[in-house]
Amino acid sequence: MTRYFEDIEEGDVYELEGRYDVTTEEVKEFAEKYDPQPFHLDEEAAEESIFGSLAASGWHTASMCMRLLVDDFLEPETSMGARGVEELRWIRPVHPGDTLRVEVEILEKRPSESRPEVGHVRTKLTGYNQHDEPVVAWTALGMTRRREPGVDAADGSED
Amino acid sequence: MTRYFEDIEEGDVYELEGRYDVTTEEVKEFAEKYDPQPFHLDEEAAEESIFGSLAASGWHTASMCMRLLVDDFLEPETSMGARGVEELRWIRPVHPGDTLRVEVEILEKRPSESRPEVGHVRTKLTGYNQHDEPVVAWTALGMTRRREPGVDAADGSED
Repeated sequence: MTRYFEDIEEGDVYELEGRYDVTTEEVKEFAEKYDPQPFHLDEEAAEESIFGSLAASGWHTASMCMRLLVDDFLEPETSMGARGVEELRWIRPVHPGDTLRVEVEILEKRPSESRPEVGHVRTKLTGYNQHDEPVVAWTALGMTRRREPGVDAADGSED
Repeated sequence: MTRYFEDIEEGDVYELEGRYDVTTEEVKEFAEKYDPQPFHLDEEAAEESIFGSLAASGWHTASMCMRLLVDDFLEPETSMGARGVEELRWIRPVHPGDTLRVEVEILEKRPSESRPEVGHVRTKLTGYNQHDEPVVAWTALGMTRRREPGVDAADGSED
């Protein structure tokens, strides 16, 4: 059953089943491309940093959680991208050997006022490590397709 | 000259010189790993999406801008990571063939109250394409090393 905007309920919580194993190789590969700071690339430098040991780039951590979200929550028929993110927090460092999982909570939904096929959904995502400690969290401003494009769009205003 | 917390001035704007060429190969490679939604992977699916043509994952766009920031702004001697990000907005789609550049504005700085070697710096980053259109923006909650660890830390409170 494809989940459309109409099927989403404020307050619903989804505990996604996927797990992401963080490896040294991938932490360094991501950092070399996108965030080549010493504490993401070099064990010795990381030990002297506030991270304590080699730590994934925050953007890498977000990307790994995004993968879990795409695999187990977003659907190609209804996911329409996101306008942005609020309150992204890197709560704890993510290290090689960690295993990540994701929880999603639906905070708010409302139909787009300008695009009849679009519903806006505000979602809180929290990523946890294998000790059930939160490591990252953000609020996504996502767009989800409506099963029945709405009459709410009559005014044509932007939103 | 290494830029320490003391050298950063609120209101300063840095136009970074680096440029990032967005390629089809890299857009698909990132998407396959971290955001395998059809509009990031497949030209035909992207044409039918709100993006109009193949578009980089928003996390990829952020990561490419991060690379420009690391290359031309952050310094290994003084960059201490970030606690998070506010108001991340994917303003326009980023497509293969685009070239990205980054501007940084210092919004606010204050010494940490708990860690004498740390200064908090709130920074607005904006990524532009080759048409000088903003494509992404966020406010980073960064930490920068102080040249002279501060006496402000006397109360030992957390911040």
